[in-house]
Amino acid sequence: MSSTRHVLVPWAQLSDRMGGQWPAGLRVDVYDGDGEPPDGVDDVELYVMPYTKPGALALLDKLPSLRVLQVLTAGVDAVIGRIGPDVRLHNGRGLHDASTAELALGLMLAAQREIPHWVDNQRQANWAPHFTRSLADSVVVILGYGSIGAALERRLLACECEVVRVASRPRPAENIYGPESLPELLPKATIVADILPSTPATAKFLDARRLAMLPDDALVVNVGRGATVDTEALLTETASGRLRAALDVTDPEPLPADHPLWSLPNVLISPHVGGGSSTFYPRAEKFVVDQLRRFAAGAELVNLVPRN
Amino acid sequence: MSSTRHVLVPWAQLSDRMGGQWPAGLRVDVYDGDGEPPDGVDDVELYVMPYTKPGALALLDKLPSLRVLQVLTAGVDAVIGRIGPDVRLHNGRGLHDASTAELALGLMLAAQREIPHWVDNQRQANWAPHFTRSLADSVVVILGYGSIGAALERRLLACECEVVRVASRPRPAENIYGPESLPELLPKATIVADILPSTPATAKFLDARRLAMLPDDALVVNVGRGATVDTEALLTETASGRLRAALDVTDPEPLPADHPLWSLPNVLISPHVGGGSSTFYPRAEKFVVDQLRRFAAGAELVNLVPRN
Ligand SMILES: NC(=O)c1ccc[n+]([C@@H]2O[C@H](COP(=O)([O-])OP(=O)(O)OC[C@H]3O[C@@H](n4cnc5c(N)ncnc54)[C@H](OP(=O)(O)O)[C@@H]3O)[C@@H](O)[C@H]2O)c1
Ligand SMILES: NC(=O)c1ccc[n+]([C@@H]2O[C@H](COP(=O)([O-])OP(=O)(O)OC[C@H]3O[C@@H](n4cnc5c(N)ncnc54)[C@H](OP(=O)(O)O)[C@@H]3O)[C@@H](O)[C@H]2O)c1
Repeated sequence: MSSTRHVLVPWAQLSDRMGGQWPAGLRVDVYDGDGEPPDGVDDVELYVMPYTKPGALALLDKLPSLRVLQVLTAGVDAVIGRIGPDVRLHNGRGLHDASTAELALGLMLAAQREIPHWVDNQRQANWAPHFTRSLADSVVVILGYGSIGAALERRLLACECEVVRVASRPRPAENIYGPESLPELLPKATIVADILPSTPATAKFLDARRLAMLPDDALVVNVGRGATVDTEALLTETASGRLRAALDVTDPEPLPADHPLWSLPNVLISPHVGGGSSTFYPRAEKFVVDQLRRFAAGAELVNLVPRN
Repeated sequence: MSSTRHVLVPWAQLSDRMGGQWPAGLRVDVYDGDGEPPDGVDDVELYVMPYTKPGALALLDKLPSLRVLQVLTAGVDAVIGRIGPDVRLHNGRGLHDASTAELALGLMLAAQREIPHWVDNQRQANWAPHFTRSLADSVVVILGYGSIGAALERRLLACECEVVRVASRPRPAENIYGPESLPELLPKATIVADILPSTPATAKFLDARRLAMLPDDALVVNVGRGATVDTEALLTETASGRLRAALDVTDPEPLPADHPLWSLPNVLISPHVGGGSSTFYPRAEKFVVDQLRRFAAGAELVNLVPRN
């Protein structure tokens, strides 16, 4: 029937959340990103792309009728160059807030309270306490005070930190600073939390000049995108011991096995797992169900990413 | 002069906080717990005991005139058997709240988000992401909902957890349960946070029977005292893989090098560093100054520990 519209979704169990059937007017196939994609995708109009599956990305090149792309990530840098200008792009803004903010908090606590050091000692059955830094009383400058940034701020305030908000432009009424204030803000930071998206404007946002503004012993946390930090400059500042870092995202990614960042004792690395925790699925399933209902009803989907 | 009273304090810089001089009527000596104690301690009436220094504890046996003992720990189990019944004992309740609560939170985040695993992978330069548990959406049962427990609760609520409060007796108006409710509460726990003091009543509080009430995969966090957990029972439940643990305190302590807990992949151990972070000194110095002023003025010191 010409009036049904073909849709690809990542999870069969979504229909359970919709009373066991898909919305009227949609022909829904499931592709979880693991095996071969289903045949006959020429007429797919809406593709809800499986989360963190490389096969899912390759399929983008084979969807000539695509009108709407729904990704489940907050960042869209991986897909933006692979879709035509007429495809409407929607992201997963909000789905990762709790997961990514809590990983950022976990990396900060691990770095300040030296959990990697206790893990190394545990592997040698060595009980050797010493005083450490704390997270409480820290001044945390959040670069990219958006959806995840606000979730991180709530956690940091409960941890007795002072939070400084930075976004793309100043909004004094919301206590948000623009990048032009960084020369005054960075020298006061105990911790800088980078949650920036990867865009042309954020490439190497934390460069040698801005890193040099941080006080000795400051901690650079990155849960945004690796490309927003000048990796060479960060390597210089951490290898010298002047700065510390805790990185969930790196440039390049995956970090090659011979990269010098791996072996620095004052650098903690997790392999881009900010969004990938159990909070994700219940939130994501509910979100996709709501988007499918909107699509079936001919309504505008939420989380549209503006493309200039 | 017979009217001056002899006092031992741990830090010389306390006098800076008092305008460069000690309160009138006090003769103050400094003993930091490291070297030999000063001579002539026969007449010491107030001893502010250095924090986490073994030498400091030995001096207790040499103070025949002691009337007031101020320790800087929250727990008093290490000193209670070493002082006469007429000595007034004051603890450091409140000084460790931020530090200990944030370590408990850090251990929970590390365990849920598998930071020890990422550290192990980092040591092998291995980038290998996978989905993990989260802290958000967890149900955390706090055993010993006191000063540190309330500080932990504030952090956990910001992390989107549900918190269940347990103390020595129920106070329904404050939503606090007593130990008799544990058979209903423990089966619902994602995480149990033990912040109990070591007393005769809390010995092996978490025993095999109560551990068995926890659901599979629950995380046992202990930042209270090692003696409040039956270590053998916890070992059985973690070695089988049914439960997980993150322990800042153990029984015995230090944990011997050949103890099987060290090598379990689902157990994270830090060496009793909950209170030992940089938040401690500014808070502790202010507190001791206030206590010295009270002592000099003949007023009652705060943080009296009731002794039956
Ligand atoms: N580690 C992980 O697993 C993981 C998981 C999820 C997301 N992320 C990353 O986190 C990013 C943020 O996610 P979100 O949901 O919080 O996004 P969001 O709500 O869109 O917030 C993005 C923030 O970045 C700011 N920003 C953008 N360009 C900037 C510039 N040139 N200079 C300064 N600030 C700039 C924005 O400022 P304005 O408010 O002024 O526009 C906004 O405050 C994603 O794009 C993704 O790269 C990582
Ligand atoms: N890991 C570390 O480095 C570190 C640092 C500081 C402290 N600590 C430990 O943390 C403990 C708690 O410190 P805090 O300042 O929070 O003490 P607190 O304010 O006195 O709170 C103690 C809590 O334990 C409860 N409790 C006592 N006996 C109990 C029993 N038999 N059954 C159930 N609950 C019981 C109390 O209940 P009620 O309110 O009903 O009396 C109270 O809620 C200290 O005693 C110390 O052992 C460890």
